[in-house]
Amino acid sequence: MDLSKIQDPSILKDMTTNQLEEMAEEVRQFLIKNLAVTGGHLGANLGVVELTLALHKVYNSPVDRFLWDVGHQSYIHKILTGRGDQFETLRQYRGLCGFPKRDESEHDVWETGHSSTSLSAAMGMAIARDLKNEKHSILPIIGDGALTGGMALEALNHIGHEKKNVTVILNDNEMSIAKNVGALHGALGRMRSAGKYHRAKDDLEWLLKKVPAVGGKLAQAAERLKDSMKYFVVPGMFFEELGFTYYGPVDGHDFEDLIDNLNYAKKTDGPVIVHVMTQKGKGYHPAETDVKDKWHGVGPYKIESGEKIKPTDAPPAWSSVISEALRKEAREDSRIVAITPAMILGSKLDKFGEEFPDRLYDVGIAEQHATTLSAGMATQGMKPFLAIYSTFLQRGYDQVIHDVARQKLNVIFGIDRAGLVGADGETHQGVFDVAFLRSVPNMVITMPKDENEAQHLVHTAVHYDDGPIAIRYPRGNAKGVETDEELRTIPIGSWEVLKDGNDAVILTFGTTIDMALEASRNLEKTGQSIRVVNARFIKPMDDAMLHDIMKSGMPILTVEEAVLQGGFGSSVLEFAEENGYSHQVVKRMGVPDRFIEHGSVNKLWEEIGLTEENIVKHVKELLPTKQQRA
Amino acid sequence: MDLSKIQDPSILKDMTTNQLEEMAEEVRQFLIKNLAVTGGHLGANLGVVELTLALHKVYNSPVDRFLWDVGHQSYIHKILTGRGDQFETLRQYRGLCGFPKRDESEHDVWETGHSSTSLSAAMGMAIARDLKNEKHSILPIIGDGALTGGMALEALNHIGHEKKNVTVILNDNEMSIAKNVGALHGALGRMRSAGKYHRAKDDLEWLLKKVPAVGGKLAQAAERLKDSMKYFVVPGMFFEELGFTYYGPVDGHDFEDLIDNLNYAKKTDGPVIVHVMTQKGKGYHPAETDVKDKWHGVGPYKIESGEKIKPTDAPPAWSSVISEALRKEAREDSRIVAITPAMILGSKLDKFGEEFPDRLYDVGIAEQHATTLSAGMATQGMKPFLAIYSTFLQRGYDQVIHDVARQKLNVIFGIDRAGLVGADGETHQGVFDVAFLRSVPNMVITMPKDENEAQHLVHTAVHYDDGPIAIRYPRGNAKGVETDEELRTIPIGSWEVLKDGNDAVILTFGTTIDMALEASRNLEKTGQSIRVVNARFIKPMDDAMLHDIMKSGMPILTVEEAVLQGGFGSSVLEFAEENGYSHQVVKRMGVPDRFIEHGSVNKLWEEIGLTEENIVKHVKELLPTKQQRA
Repeated sequence: MDLSKIQDPSILKDMTTNQLEEMAEEVRQFLIKNLAVTGGHLGANLGVVELTLALHKVYNSPVDRFLWDVGHQSYIHKILTGRGDQFETLRQYRGLCGFPKRDESEHDVWETGHSSTSLSAAMGMAIARDLKNEKHSILPIIGDGALTGGMALEALNHIGHEKKNVTVILNDNEMSIAKNVGALHGALGRMRSAGKYHRAKDDLEWLLKKVPAVGGKLAQAAERLKDSMKYFVVPGMFFEELGFTYYGPVDGHDFEDLIDNLNYAKKTDGPVIVHVMTQKGKGYHPAETDVKDKWHGVGPYKIESGEKIKPTDAPPAWSSVISEALRKEAREDSRIVAITPAMILGSKLDKFGEEFPDRLYDVGIAEQHATTLSAGMATQGMKPFLAIYSTFLQRGYDQVIHDVARQKLNVIFGIDRAGLVGADGETHQGVFDVAFLRSVPNMVITMPKDENEAQHLVHTAVHYDDGPIAIRYPRGNAKGVETDEELRTIPIGSWEVLKDGNDAVILTFGTTIDMALEASRNLEKTGQSIRVVNARFIKPMDDAMLHDIMKSGMPILTVEEAVLQGGFGSSVLEFAEENGYSHQVVKRMGVPDRFIEHGSVNKLWEEIGLTEENIVKHVKELLPTKQQRA
Repeated sequence: MDLSKIQDPSILKDMTTNQLEEMAEEVRQFLIKNLAVTGGHLGANLGVVELTLALHKVYNSPVDRFLWDVGHQSYIHKILTGRGDQFETLRQYRGLCGFPKRDESEHDVWETGHSSTSLSAAMGMAIARDLKNEKHSILPIIGDGALTGGMALEALNHIGHEKKNVTVILNDNEMSIAKNVGALHGALGRMRSAGKYHRAKDDLEWLLKKVPAVGGKLAQAAERLKDSMKYFVVPGMFFEELGFTYYGPVDGHDFEDLIDNLNYAKKTDGPVIVHVMTQKGKGYHPAETDVKDKWHGVGPYKIESGEKIKPTDAPPAWSSVISEALRKEAREDSRIVAITPAMILGSKLDKFGEEFPDRLYDVGIAEQHATTLSAGMATQGMKPFLAIYSTFLQRGYDQVIHDVARQKLNVIFGIDRAGLVGADGETHQGVFDVAFLRSVPNMVITMPKDENEAQHLVHTAVHYDDGPIAIRYPRGNAKGVETDEELRTIPIGSWEVLKDGNDAVILTFGTTIDMALEASRNLEKTGQSIRVVNARFIKPMDDAMLHDIMKSGMPILTVEEAVLQGGFGSSVLEFAEENGYSHQVVKRMGVPDRFIEHGSVNKLWEEIGLTEENIVKHVKELLPTKQQRA
């Protein structure tokens, strides 16, 4: 079958199990072949081939609503709903999104990217359905990892309480983004292996019948036992306690088991949980045998060997630079503990964990807990380092304000994936943190210009004892500069002049420094002398340097890979206002006030005008202003 | 006993049960008497008198760590740790804080205010303790309501997994801040009434012994049953599944039961949960019989009758104004559904719920879920109105960005308690929302000047179909103005000139409008003509009006009861920069970059300089600037 020609899932309706199995095999080959070129979330999708086909066979999308939690496992759903022909553009600029997208198809009813949202959204849809007297099924499909996110647990609690018809498909691969953690995981494990307790209730009933019919104590005990029987543990006890009917465990690669159980679920009133066991990477040997989950999100690879096609000699990833510096510090300083919400590999903390197994805590997908856990440690004199993606720190915002900053605790935030992240797109761009952290009292916010400064900033953060400090760093590889052997402290709030000049000043930090320097060099050719400053502390700023600049009357251009509303540039405007530099000319460049889609970072920079050419253009526009004023 | 003379909890160590009971009675009278004058969280504290005394008797604070979740129930702890003499100043400016405060006492090891943080903090402390090879107990004391907050569930999951020694005291009063909701609550209910299942396991063991020793099927069944026995439901099955040892239910007003169980807990290795049943308001008849939880947080009252001492003829509360307008709209528009995270009374949604019982959802303390639940409803064409305190919306920040704004869903946020809240202090000030919402694309943010505008803004929000819209409104009573019978739409982004003038412009909104008008009138007396604008749309702003003002060259003073970093004033600075008004003079007034403590709002305004006098002063400073430039 040509999968790129499928218009809608109706083709599945009359298929036999054999035909479904054939199709599953074709889908697998399609994914393996296409993703070898484009990259993408291979492992997760290979795990849900049969599940997705079974869902689309038993249910009737888009009347029945599928909500793909996290959403990176929705590729098969996309193939079945008329998008097989777009896989060559997967995760590329203006191409097929790697997550569900309501604009793409009426079958995508809920957009995701961050985890653990599907149950809340499903409950909202269920309330709407019932108020409108509609009849259809609502099916959030959620992984065992995402289930431990706080909001998913909040939603379980609410759905179970309200007894709404919501069918939760628990996609349990025992390894969501990384090896799963948490006591709930233990409970799931007991459910998985619950076969031998299956018949406990039957056994008891039978046994009681055999007990000699005597009176007195024995009869009373038997009676009480009958009463207790409903409390015998069935595999899904945990969910039953929360008000759900539990079906499972279901073999997620067996169509008959899947279809049987989905049909039961369809007929069941009230909240249902279908516990489906799947294997991540199923059907592709390199991914199947991947214990470290390196096949979660991949770039291009060679199909035969599974070898990743990567540029050789690339500098180390920013995450590695930071975690290696932390590891160095941790050897000297026993106060350091690293915390990650399910991102040991993404944040490159694996080596740290090998060297300090009792000083690395992976808390699972639980950003709120991770933040306040860090705060708790800090009250006891530890130096917690919370490695967290910028976009996921949004989940811990209240905890940053209320628990960390308000108590002025020495928590170090390693804000990974700061700035545009590229292929993951809208849901993952790390562009809000400067704005949302800057308004929080007691926060120090920094960003290194290269890996050498990065390691010194880690050292600085470890030696800073006056409250929280955040080091932001981008996705991808660092610059490839030499790094000092000896780590040193960089004064809090100090900036660095990278290139002198006296016609105008560019204030910038992190990823946009290179284009600023290039613009400055190009402007030099036409006679303009432009100073470029590495504003490595976003908060507090270098007040002394700002006073000097503003007293000089030089116009300022701020350039940042973060939202303009309330960002670093605004902070410079605020400084001018607060200090009475009412004639200071400031122009800001940054991320505009809209969500930025997926695509390569360079492409996106171009789209939003964050380019060397625009820096040149803006600086040129600023210069006459200065001359007019002179 | 003179409770104000207690220095530390050691006085309890040798007390008999009788003496403890006497002391409990004295503590109750002390609280009832003092809070009648100062107000405070009476009900919650009356519920934990015995529990707090028992904890301080069995454990050894501050070596053993008590973490009071939410923290409004820490009054008895404060009395026992040397602060009984400060209760006359409770919740007043520079007086005793209504929540735990590390500055106040070494016995306050963790500061709270927002709920559900104590388990995460306790886990952080436990990790630190174990790394430092210290030995002491860590005891988060958490209510049944706070337990359903997502981060508490994340923490339970982590603590159970890591098997750390943490002793969770579950203070179950079946009614945390309001009547509790959620399936977990149902599970707690089954634990409470689990007495009759207590002996199921014993019964089965006994029964099996009596079964004739035959072989074959019967023997096999008996064997399997023995295996299954550990799965028999004990009352705390839910917690046992998560890896906790469960003690309870314990009578929280019986010292012997309390002390026995705390002693068991003390000797138990690994995570423990002690399930303590308490009665909110215990010992004070008006509070005991308070089914609506109106005695949760109270102002002054008459001790004999329980009658609240309130100014008569006060205008309606802002929350009432908003919820009444919503009720009016809901009669016409069946799409409207109200959602609250455990604040039906606080947000005055009780009447709405009476009129539309199937269109009000109290989701419990679960702000993340509440936000995404609203988003889910909106995808189905509903008009969810999420009533949420400004400070608690911080908990749903990622959900605002990722689920609501990114999908441009029509969710109405009723941001209650926006601005300074007074006696609740640091943890509750609603001063960050302008900054953190303004940087989110697609958000509309408004604030009414009075109750008439408030109801029109509710109408406007209901009729706005282009994404999320937030109406912020303060704590306390509205202005007492006449309200129109007919509701109308206010154009999105439109401002209103309240008083004309042509020397300078004050841009302000909400609570600070009155002082701006007064300042303007006072300045008029000395010949300055000051325009005052009601900037009721914070985003988008009134671009046309801003262009007019900036073209005129008039200096601008912005005044806001919100943080200055990235706030409304910065937005005005940004507008000037974006539109090339490089000579525009702007001065900003607002909340400075530090956490603002408790005290009356007027006192706090004075402290941070948000006064009519300062407006006059700043405007005067601006005026010469204009003349210089003319």
